Amino acid sequence: MSRRVSDHDVPEGKEMEINSAPSSRRYSSENLPYVHKVGVPPKQNLLKEFTSTVKETFFADDPLRPFKDQTGSRKFVLGIQTLFPIFDWARDYNLSKFKGDLIAGLTIASLCIPQDIGYAKLANLDPQYGLYSSFVPPLVYAFMGSSRDIAIGPVAVVSLLLGTLLQNEIDSSKNPIDYRRLAFTATFFAGITQVTLGFFRLGFLIDFLSHAAIVGFMAGAAVTIALQQLKGLLGIKHFTKKTDIVSVMRSVWGTVNTEWNWETIAIGVSFLVFLFIAKFIGKKNKKFFWVPAIAPLISVIISTFSVYITHAEKHGVQIVRHIDKGVNPISAKEIFFSGEYLVKGFKIGVVAGLIALTEAVAIGRTFAAMKDYQLDGNKEMVALGTMNVVGSMTSCYVATGSFSRSAVNYMAGCNTAVSNIVMSMVVLLTLELITPLFKYTPNAILASIIISAVIGLIDIEAVILLWKIDKFDFVACMGAFFGVVFVSVEIGLLIAVSISFAKILLQVTRPRTAILGKLPRTSVYRNILQYPDAAKVAGIVIVRVDSAIYFSNSNYIKERILRWLTDEDEILKENQLPRIQYLIVEMSPVTDIDTSGIHALEELYRSLQKRDVQIILANPGQVVVDKLHASEYTELIGDDHIFLAVADAVRACTSKMEQP
Amino acid sequence: MSRRVSDHDVPEGKEMEINSAPSSRRYSSENLPYVHKVGVPPKQNLLKEFTSTVKETFFADDPLRPFKDQTGSRKFVLGIQTLFPIFDWARDYNLSKFKGDLIAGLTIASLCIPQDIGYAKLANLDPQYGLYSSFVPPLVYAFMGSSRDIAIGPVAVVSLLLGTLLQNEIDSSKNPIDYRRLAFTATFFAGITQVTLGFFRLGFLIDFLSHAAIVGFMAGAAVTIALQQLKGLLGIKHFTKKTDIVSVMRSVWGTVNTEWNWETIAIGVSFLVFLFIAKFIGKKNKKFFWVPAIAPLISVIISTFSVYITHAEKHGVQIVRHIDKGVNPISAKEIFFSGEYLVKGFKIGVVAGLIALTEAVAIGRTFAAMKDYQLDGNKEMVALGTMNVVGSMTSCYVATGSFSRSAVNYMAGCNTAVSNIVMSMVVLLTLELITPLFKYTPNAILASIIISAVIGLIDIEAVILLWKIDKFDFVACMGAFFGVVFVSVEIGLLIAVSISFAKILLQVTRPRTAILGKLPRTSVYRNILQYPDAAKVAGIVIVRVDSAIYFSNSNYIKERILRWLTDEDEILKENQLPRIQYLIVEMSPVTDIDTSGIHALEELYRSLQKRDVQIILANPGQVVVDKLHASEYTELIGDDHIFLAVADAVRACTSKMEQP
Repeated sequence: MSRRVSDHDVPEGKEMEINSAPSSRRYSSENLPYVHKVGVPPKQNLLKEFTSTVKETFFADDPLRPFKDQTGSRKFVLGIQTLFPIFDWARDYNLSKFKGDLIAGLTIASLCIPQDIGYAKLANLDPQYGLYSSFVPPLVYAFMGSSRDIAIGPVAVVSLLLGTLLQNEIDSSKNPIDYRRLAFTATFFAGITQVTLGFFRLGFLIDFLSHAAIVGFMAGAAVTIALQQLKGLLGIKHFTKKTDIVSVMRSVWGTVNTEWNWETIAIGVSFLVFLFIAKFIGKKNKKFFWVPAIAPLISVIISTFSVYITHAEKHGVQIVRHIDKGVNPISAKEIFFSGEYLVKGFKIGVVAGLIALTEAVAIGRTFAAMKDYQLDGNKEMVALGTMNVVGSMTSCYVATGSFSRSAVNYMAGCNTAVSNIVMSMVVLLTLELITPLFKYTPNAILASIIISAVIGLIDIEAVILLWKIDKFDFVACMGAFFGVVFVSVEIGLLIAVSISFAKILLQVTRPRTAILGKLPRTSVYRNILQYPDAAKVAGIVIVRVDSAIYFSNSNYIKERILRWLTDEDEILKENQLPRIQYLIVEMSPVTDIDTSGIHALEELYRSLQKRDVQIILANPGQVVVDKLHASEYTELIGDDHIFLAVADAVRACTSKMEQP
Repeated sequence: MSRRVSDHDVPEGKEMEINSAPSSRRYSSENLPYVHKVGVPPKQNLLKEFTSTVKETFFADDPLRPFKDQTGSRKFVLGIQTLFPIFDWARDYNLSKFKGDLIAGLTIASLCIPQDIGYAKLANLDPQYGLYSSFVPPLVYAFMGSSRDIAIGPVAVVSLLLGTLLQNEIDSSKNPIDYRRLAFTATFFAGITQVTLGFFRLGFLIDFLSHAAIVGFMAGAAVTIALQQLKGLLGIKHFTKKTDIVSVMRSVWGTVNTEWNWETIAIGVSFLVFLFIAKFIGKKNKKFFWVPAIAPLISVIISTFSVYITHAEKHGVQIVRHIDKGVNPISAKEIFFSGEYLVKGFKIGVVAGLIALTEAVAIGRTFAAMKDYQLDGNKEMVALGTMNVVGSMTSCYVATGSFSRSAVNYMAGCNTAVSNIVMSMVVLLTLELITPLFKYTPNAILASIIISAVIGLIDIEAVILLWKIDKFDFVACMGAFFGVVFVSVEIGLLIAVSISFAKILLQVTRPRTAILGKLPRTSVYRNILQYPDAAKVAGIVIVRVDSAIYFSNSNYIKERILRWLTDEDEILKENQLPRIQYLIVEMSPVTDIDTSGIHALEELYRSLQKRDVQIILANPGQVVVDKLHASEYTELIGDDHIFLAVADAVRACTSKMEQP
């Protein structure tokens, strides 16, 4: 205790004397020196101000730091290493690291192969395109990406989104060629979008899709995808093209007696159960993480084999039927660089690209935080973008980081992006050698694999947490979720984005204000609603404004303060207490103010003059003080009406009021 | 001095003991009790929370306050009075008040009549429509409006905007009938928009057009309008329909030898000079405010008479020629309620309505602040909207509050909206009796009247102030200005709005952060950039975050803090000083946090763990503390890592570090 006191009982007066040395002369009335004159930094010249703002906005992560004072040749090397991090970490790459990467790579390969085939169907593309997208993009990423744990490839949500958006333009069943071409076009522009955002340092734009909204969107997408799988799981032939739960359920129940195929259901459900058990084992004991990881491949092998020998396909069990052999064909010339589809492809690409980006960056950040290495969001975007541009020219559709596979990758002990290379090599072999064997793989299995995969995207804990922490976030989450489930993926996305923005606007329009009271036997002033024992000071109203004062809220703040005053006055009248003579505005949380804010303060001052109430500012921040001076507001209300702390202000007021 | 000390030397410890009574038991490590448990208000139930939010957002001005605990009949009366304030103030209306209103009314009438005729031309409508719009709307407003000083009628900017937008759809010279109908349609929907905004309490939406942007937009519009007047002033017959300075100048210089009419120029310029002298006199001596007010009417009378006797129109001096006699014809059935023009009219109406609203509300607030009476923005909108809806059915186009005339109205000593009634009565007489006399009024006079009127919209002082106070506001202002002058009114408007939004987004994306240091011989910690004498504490980094932590900035803040740490570490390494062991985050300005913010803090915590640095929070606000608890973040970092003040935190750290 003693220590604390010894530190604290230095009267704040002392500090003032020190700080105010340069300026205390100017302030005679109140012998309270005006502390805020102290520490006014030498006025920055405009250019410096401007550049610093630009830097903080676009180069907040200071990407050129390593280049500082380096020789030309060194700069070049660094440049290469910045663009291709592999040349950086490859130098101290060793066998032990490779062992980890090899195991991880094989694991995610076994997981991705069946998933890819299924996801391709979500995007209304032939199965091999899923595999293509797990071959080229991971390779490109391995050279350019800076995340060590992310597993690249097609993912459920983006596949679904792409499928829906493309289907709106071209019917994949009627015109598969143009559909595929449009898919490549969209992929190309998705990549371009990502590169552009990264190159122009606009990475922060994706932060405007709030975490809450993403949780809701992902969960909604997962449900939608799972519902889509009922087609394969129940062996329904004629299935709605819509994705909303209502029409899906209708076409499910409408076909109970006609199209449901019991063999299919038997196979599908039994393997679904198997997969869930595997998942459960993996959850229960972390060192069995590989069980759920290889379960899908096993079930594919078993089911394919059993179908092959039992010829179940003759009994209406639908199978993959055909899947091309060989590596990615070149598709550069298939991209639409003219005509109406150019624009459509561009639009779809932008949307898909942004969503893919959000997912990848989120994953990258999560694991970077876990292993504590810095991740340059903008550099990542360039890498992901390039990978998709290259992909679009080699028959791949939009690839990005996959939640589930990245987690497996991490748990399998990957050390570098080499695990991605290993995976893509395995995919290469698959394409070259064994794709034909997938011919007999029943769709039901793919369906159950996808279901068991996407279930992981529904994060109940997160939703509960949202509810507990921030109701508004919860609303955003639910809005996105129901938007996706009941209407469509696009609408859900739209809702997610608009709610996110609404929140920002609300935040800057309706900031909090609070009446402060003095805590007994202290000189501390706190919100009287939070501290019931805090006592108001007779004849004085103390209001705290909890936000920067900008044009978007300046008028509200002004009127809110005046209303606080009116309320207080009424209470005083009722109790025949002396009227209010001083309004103290505690400005500690007011981090900035703009011209509209200054105007509001001026209007406030005038209104108070009419009511014969004096306005006093307590502890305005540096930026604010500068602007108050620039606008001569300080001269308007008088320099001696600005204090270091509420306590000082109150003391000054009371002493004045005591005078006859 | 002594008083202050006696107040201050109460050790903060005392206060803690008091505050922490209910909970201090729980915190053994550090014998610093955990102050923030204190004053946690009883958890609000969800509904209450929700309703209070809604109230602050939409009913911030508490419109139903007077209705509280009143009898039914009284409520009804109050309701009427709320909708028609005239029934409120009319009761204590008296002769002395009327005298002021009468004088004011006559003055603004003499000012508005010539202006109206000119403004109608800006909107590509026949002159009488300007007068119509000064007859009905002011009457309606007088009954419903709550501002006492605003002068209602057509205004230059809205007329220009409306003219431009309508002209884009229909050529007024080719198809005047449909053009006029579309004008009424736009006016109707402008009114509907205004009523809707007001009724649904969405008034705050117009606050999103920043003051700076408006200043720029107004100035740009003024320049554009003045340029348009060169047509009348120089007597040019073939004039460009475009409004941008380049094409206007081209068509002006292109016609020097062919179309310039010297008689016209002589008349126009001489009266322009006269008007400016009048303006100057009015400025010099406030009690001659009426000189500039009646100067326009005088010049109209003189010029009209002289043209009449000299038959100058025969020498190419263009005159008004024709202007309808009689009051507003009914135009309800002329409004497009179907067909393509419905949509177009709606769009134009929304834009024009919003701009009109912004102008009117700005004026209303200014004068309300001057005379210190409250103005319910939403109620105003309902009044203005109704007035325009009624107007659209009685051959009026969008009317709103006029800057210049309201100022005159105020200076002429108006007391209530009665001055508007007086004005509209004068206009009525004008329409009934003397409109034919305007036949010989030369367009040059109207041009010079408009020029002298709109010049007032260019507010140089404001621009200078913007530059001095806030560079970003200045940019917004200039952007709007040049947008209007060099491209078009719509583009200027678009720029204004988007810059305003960009500012908001920037604000919530890149908040300020600062490193704090201890001021010598005090326990106060301040930004070391502002207080060069503030000293860092060995082994500790103190960072202040100057904003609420939301999804839009959480990631930036996290990485920014980590970078501060890295920077500090490097400096220490260079000087072989002990490494950093504690990171103290000063959270006083952090007014709120959402789930993304919490996640960022968690990631920050993990990264710091990896670096073996302890995180400590200082003085988080109440809302923040609640959420930190809800998310169990306090449990994560340990309750004893949250302190009342930076000073306490530092003391705790140092004492720990001292231990071997």
